[in-house]
Amino acid sequence: MKILSIATASLSLLASSLGHAQGNASSPSTVTSADVRSVAPAMDKYATVVLEGEIWRRPDLSARDRSIVTVAAMIARNQVIEMPAQINRALDNGVKPSELSELITHLAFYSGWPNALQAVAITRPIYAKRRIGIDQLPAVSPQLLPIDVASEAQRATSVEENFGSVSRGVVKYTGEVLFQDLWLRPALAPRDRSLVTISALIATGQVAQLGAHLNRAMDNGLTKPQASEVLTHLAFYGGWPNVFTAMPIVKTVFEKRPG
Amino acid sequence: MKILSIATASLSLLASSLGHAQGNASSPSTVTSADVRSVAPAMDKYATVVLEGEIWRRPDLSARDRSIVTVAAMIARNQVIEMPAQINRALDNGVKPSELSELITHLAFYSGWPNALQAVAITRPIYAKRRIGIDQLPAVSPQLLPIDVASEAQRATSVEENFGSVSRGVVKYTGEVLFQDLWLRPALAPRDRSLVTISALIATGQVAQLGAHLNRAMDNGLTKPQASEVLTHLAFYGGWPNVFTAMPIVKTVFEKRPG
Amino acid sequence: MKILSIATASLSLLASSLGHAQGNASSPSTVTSADVRSVAPAMDKYATVVLEGEIWRRPDLSARDRSIVTVAAMIARNQVIEMPAQINRALDNGVKPSELSELITHLAFYSGWPNALQAVAITRPIYAKRRIGIDQLPAVSPQLLPIDVASEAQRATSVEENFGSVSRGVVKYTGEVLFQDLWLRPALAPRDRSLVTISALIATGQVAQLGAHLNRAMDNGLTKPQASEVLTHLAFYGGWPNVFTAMPIVKTVFEKRPG
Repeated sequence: MKILSIATASLSLLASSLGHAQGNASSPSTVTSADVRSVAPAMDKYATVVLEGEIWRRPDLSARDRSIVTVAAMIARNQVIEMPAQINRALDNGVKPSELSELITHLAFYSGWPNALQAVAITRPIYAKRRIGIDQLPAVSPQLLPIDVASEAQRATSVEENFGSVSRGVVKYTGEVLFQDLWLRPALAPRDRSLVTISALIATGQVAQLGAHLNRAMDNGLTKPQASEVLTHLAFYGGWPNVFTAMPIVKTVFEKRPG
Repeated sequence: MKILSIATASLSLLASSLGHAQGNASSPSTVTSADVRSVAPAMDKYATVVLEGEIWRRPDLSARDRSIVTVAAMIARNQVIEMPAQINRALDNGVKPSELSELITHLAFYSGWPNALQAVAITRPIYAKRRIGIDQLPAVSPQLLPIDVASEAQRATSVEENFGSVSRGVVKYTGEVLFQDLWLRPALAPRDRSLVTISALIATGQVAQLGAHLNRAMDNGLTKPQASEVLTHLAFYGGWPNVFTAMPIVKTVFEKRPG
Repeated sequence: MKILSIATASLSLLASSLGHAQGNASSPSTVTSADVRSVAPAMDKYATVVLEGEIWRRPDLSARDRSIVTVAAMIARNQVIEMPAQINRALDNGVKPSELSELITHLAFYSGWPNALQAVAITRPIYAKRRIGIDQLPAVSPQLLPIDVASEAQRATSVEENFGSVSRGVVKYTGEVLFQDLWLRPALAPRDRSLVTISALIATGQVAQLGAHLNRAMDNGLTKPQASEVLTHLAFYGGWPNVFTAMPIVKTVFEKRPG
């Protein structure tokens, strides 16, 4: 029998779901608690007692911020299974549709275009079901936030000096498209944009730019307790090894910053 | 025409499969040998002659252990296409349903919750088809294995000293949930739990904790020839670059251990 | 309601697509521009103006080479959503079916067997639709390209000295299967094989072997402007962080090579 695994796994569910085309915004999870219990009862206990009962309720990071961290990590890792549930949860937790739209656009650059397209494919029917139309989405070409001229000049000089001889294209688009355009789009606050960026970096074990981006995040208003708690949250959603890989870099940033 | 790629790829297969909802435990592979030959004939030759004909039969690692390594790598990398076939193969190779359940629970922490949920979604219909019920699954709260007090104290002190100032939450849950609970659950032997952990780390190129976890694995009974053979097996399932990235760390561990 | 996320996301599309089983080779994208606009209008602007309007047209890398880079990156990252569209685009851009077949086989080793099987599952219906039969695919056991005896002896000695004590299996198959067989298969030129390899390494943030493989690529005829442009292209398809992680290694290689 020739059949794709995803079809193998989902066919019985899918067959019983024809006619329920666009998911259920009130469903807490795509893989139900009963599903988990039927395979890994202890995992369901950890999910209920620790992940839902403790982690999502810890005080140093709001539920809204935790949703940003969670969705960013899932898009960065291209994990589709829980993405519909977590995107619905993000909207329920107060992440605005315009913010989610910018988050996906941001990750097109920070986790690669195909990951963002996957997120679009999953988000589109959710927006349709919630009747979120173009009027709730960010303008294509809005008035940009004011740029910090000195800081951007310093960044541009550093990238030019380091990598001008390596790739003119990367240098060009890093400036023109990322730091002089994308990062200045107003529908996602710079602090939240940084939260998306560091969440994606940590969740995928990419540490080379984590120090610079964590400093930028804290310059943009992310507090030290919040950054600490991002690590706790991502231990569960990105896996312990990625968080332990990130911690030495976070430690160095914390130690070097005043206060 | 708007259609998701996974649907594009699977629709004809899927259409012909309606009514065969839960896969076929005796199928050796989801993508058949004929499928591979119709796209990449040489790849099928390598699969038949080298991967099946040699790798799975090499003596230093049992077929049962190779299944643990393979399934752990696939869950850690969120590779769904062959997961049903390899989970069935694991059960056929003597991995107990209770062990597989613990393996998935373990990887919820070591490769992130969404990866484990994906594995649950794929494993659930396989367990249903094989009539594996709750009686064959691990207890939610079993009698834990005895803890090595001195070793755990040393670990806790080290993490506290290194990262106590970085994230109280990570330090707390690493102790309370991982090393004082998860690792002591009896349905997966510590040696197998270590095998799962190092397979996940190697297959995802995460080397920062590999040295510590390989030492733990060997303390837990994984032999040097077995660890060597995990690398050979993962070269095929995790890709050559990840294995070559891991080898310097493995070399250092081998050289520093007595015997 | 129990339903897999991929089903949630695609069911309405899927339902409307029954009977259109194997995709549409002329479709420019699986997720349409209208889909993207309905979620992230700015992302669609960047796709239209920058990615399609500029990146794919930049002179230092041909559209055919960009397709090789793109497909290799997607297979290495196991990104299924745009894979059908990009495989069709690769064939339209002049990548021969035999070359694509070898690319997939090559990545079975360089990104892991399951990733290549996923690519086979997606490519099979595309080949069927285009009536690409076995006569257009590479021979299973062709006359191999002549081996550079001195260079291969040097590689073999280096791997043996470094890792002979770590894994006999890895050393054996790296020689016998990879460098004395796979790399010598004639249906994909060594320069293109190198292009596939470095694209996969960069797109997955695997830098440990990037220096060696970039040197090999340039020995095989990849020019410095082409390598620079691979970075620009992959910034979009693999994400900015992976490219910035790769740039210091690329810089070192560029600086050490004559000319």
